[in-house]
Amino acid sequence: MADLAIDLHGGDLGPSHLIPASLRYFQQHPQHNGLLFGLTDSCKPHLPTRLPANVDFKPCHHHLPAELNPAQLLRHRYGSGLELAYETLADQGVDAVVSSEHTGVLMALMHRHGVPHPAVDRPVLVSWVPTARKPIVMLDLGASFSASAEQLLGFAAIGQAIASESRARKPSLALLNLGVEANKGPHSLRLAAEQLRQWPDLDFRGFIEADQIFQGRLDLVITDGFTGNAVIKSAEGTLDLTLSALREQLQGDWLGRVLGYFLNRRLKPQFVRLDPRRSNGALLAGSPMTVIKSHGDADALAFQAAIGRAVDAVEGRWCGRILDRLDQLIR
Amino acid sequence: MADLAIDLHGGDLGPSHLIPASLRYFQQHPQHNGLLFGLTDSCKPHLPTRLPANVDFKPCHHHLPAELNPAQLLRHRYGSGLELAYETLADQGVDAVVSSEHTGVLMALMHRHGVPHPAVDRPVLVSWVPTARKPIVMLDLGASFSASAEQLLGFAAIGQAIASESRARKPSLALLNLGVEANKGPHSLRLAAEQLRQWPDLDFRGFIEADQIFQGRLDLVITDGFTGNAVIKSAEGTLDLTLSALREQLQGDWLGRVLGYFLNRRLKPQFVRLDPRRSNGALLAGSPMTVIKSHGDADALAFQAAIGRAVDAVEGRWCGRILDRLDQLIR
Repeated sequence: MADLAIDLHGGDLGPSHLIPASLRYFQQHPQHNGLLFGLTDSCKPHLPTRLPANVDFKPCHHHLPAELNPAQLLRHRYGSGLELAYETLADQGVDAVVSSEHTGVLMALMHRHGVPHPAVDRPVLVSWVPTARKPIVMLDLGASFSASAEQLLGFAAIGQAIASESRARKPSLALLNLGVEANKGPHSLRLAAEQLRQWPDLDFRGFIEADQIFQGRLDLVITDGFTGNAVIKSAEGTLDLTLSALREQLQGDWLGRVLGYFLNRRLKPQFVRLDPRRSNGALLAGSPMTVIKSHGDADALAFQAAIGRAVDAVEGRWCGRILDRLDQLIR
Repeated sequence: MADLAIDLHGGDLGPSHLIPASLRYFQQHPQHNGLLFGLTDSCKPHLPTRLPANVDFKPCHHHLPAELNPAQLLRHRYGSGLELAYETLADQGVDAVVSSEHTGVLMALMHRHGVPHPAVDRPVLVSWVPTARKPIVMLDLGASFSASAEQLLGFAAIGQAIASESRARKPSLALLNLGVEANKGPHSLRLAAEQLRQWPDLDFRGFIEADQIFQGRLDLVITDGFTGNAVIKSAEGTLDLTLSALREQLQGDWLGRVLGYFLNRRLKPQFVRLDPRRSNGALLAGSPMTVIKSHGDADALAFQAAIGRAVDAVEGRWCGRILDRLDQLIR
C-alpha cells in the first residue's frame, strides 16, 4: 500500500488531463491512495462530484510563477500545490510525490527539505529507457553537466540499490564511453571503471557506446546528466523521425491504408515495448524523499506509468536502500 | 578535378571490398584520379589485370600493428600504405586521403606532418548526419571529451567555413544543450552562445536538444566530441532497433512477406534519405591536409560516399577556407 501526492499542475497538459489519468489509476488500484494537489478554480470543472474512496483533493490557492528561477524556491514560498505536496511528504503524510514539473524545480524543493546524501553532491535523476528486451535503468539524467569518478561511483551505487531488488541479484552495469576499449575516454571514466571492477554484487561490463544501450542486454547504464540527456533525446528524435516516415507512407491512397491496417496490428506488440510513455517516471534519488518526475508532455498513459513507478519505489523501499548503499560508499 | 589517395586497409572489410568500391567510383567519375595504397599480397587477387586510366596501385610492404597506440606513430614509421598516403599528401602528390582507420591513428599521423591550427588544440572531426530533410553538419565527433567556450567557437568557425560554401550564404547554427532556454547548461556553452550571437554571416539559433537535430532545420550543430559520439551512436542504435522490429514482422508467414514487398517499395525513398551509409565520410579539420575518415565498417556504398566527400572537400577548398576562418578567430 502506498499513499501518493499527485501534482496536477506541472507539465504541459494540466488538470484537464492529469485528473482523469490519476482517477483511472487509483480506481484500478484501490489498494493505493491518492492525494491530488491543485488550484480549486482550474481543477473543479474536471473533478467528479463524488471522488473514489481512495482519492482526495487538496486545494491550493497559488501557482508557481511561469518563469521561475529554481534558486528562488530556497528563499520564497509560493503556496503552490507542489510545495504543499512536498511538505506533506516531509511530514510523512504521504510516501511519495509525483509531478511533471521541471527537474530544476523538483530538485530545488528537495533542497528546501534537506541536503542530498554527501556521496552525491546533488539529487540524481534515474530513468528507465525502453530497449529491445526490457526497460533498463540509466542515470544521471539530471543536473550533472559532467561527472567525476566519485560521482560516477555514486550513480552506480544508486543504480545497484534499485536494480538488485527488482532484477538479478548481481545486476550488470556498464559505463557509457566513446569506445569499448579500456584505454578509451576521459580519465574520470577509466578511474571509475578500475573501482567498479572490484565491487562485489555487481557484474561490471566495462565501457559501452550508446548504440548498445538499446539492445537491452544490461541492467544499468551510467553516464553524466548532459550526455544522458543527449542520448535519450537523440533516441526520441530518431524514433519520431522513423515512425513519421512510416506513417506518411501508410496514409493517403487505398493501398497505403490497407498496408497500414495490417502492419499496425502486427507492429503494435513490438512498438508497445519501445513506447517511451510506458517507461515514464524518473526517480529523483539521493535524499530520503521519494519524488517521481513525469515527462513534461506526459499524456494520460505516461502519467499513469509515473504513478506506477512511485508505487514501485515505495513498495521496494528504493530511497532507503539507496541511502544505505551510499553510506557504504563513503564509510 | 581531384587526385585522391585511398587506404585499402583501415576498417573491417579490407581490400576485397574497398578495391571494387574504389574502382567503381573512379570509373563513374573519370575526371578524378585515384591512387590506391595497399599490401601487394592481399590486394593483388582483387585488382583487375588492367586498371582504369585514372587509377593506380601503390604497393606497400608493411601494415600497421593491430594493437597500435596512436602515440607510437609520432616516434616510429611502420611503412604502411596509410603512412605512404599521408606522405604523398604532405608532398602535394595528391589532394586528399580517404581511410577507414581509427580516428586516433588518423589524428596522430596528421600530427606527424605538422600541428593543427592554434585556434583548435587538436584536429576536429566534422560529420554529416542524415535528417528528415538533408544531411546536416555536426562537430566535434572526434577526440574532445568536453569543450571550452573557445573550442566551441573553433568548431563553429570550422562549420561556418564549410556550410557557407555548400549551402546558405548565412548558415544556421545551434549549440547542443540539455534545454533550449538561454540559462540552461554549463557555463562554457552560455559563454559561447553570447559570442556567437554577435557573429556576422551566421544565423545563430541558440540552444537545441538532441531530438531537434533530426528534424533537419539547421545547417550546423556544435557540441563536444564525447556528446557528439553519444548522440550519433544513440540514433544508430534506435534506427537499428526500429528497423529490425519492422523486418521481424515482415518475414516469416505469407502475409508478412506480401506486406514487406509493398512496404519496401514505398519506404525505400524515405529510408534512403536516412541511410547513414550515404552520409559517410567525416572530415578531419584544422590542418592544411584534407583527410576523410570513412566509418570502420563502411561497405562499398558507404566507402564511395566517403570518396565523394573527399572530392567535395578538394573542389570546395574546405581546408584552406577553414584555416582562413580560424585565422580570423584569433586575430
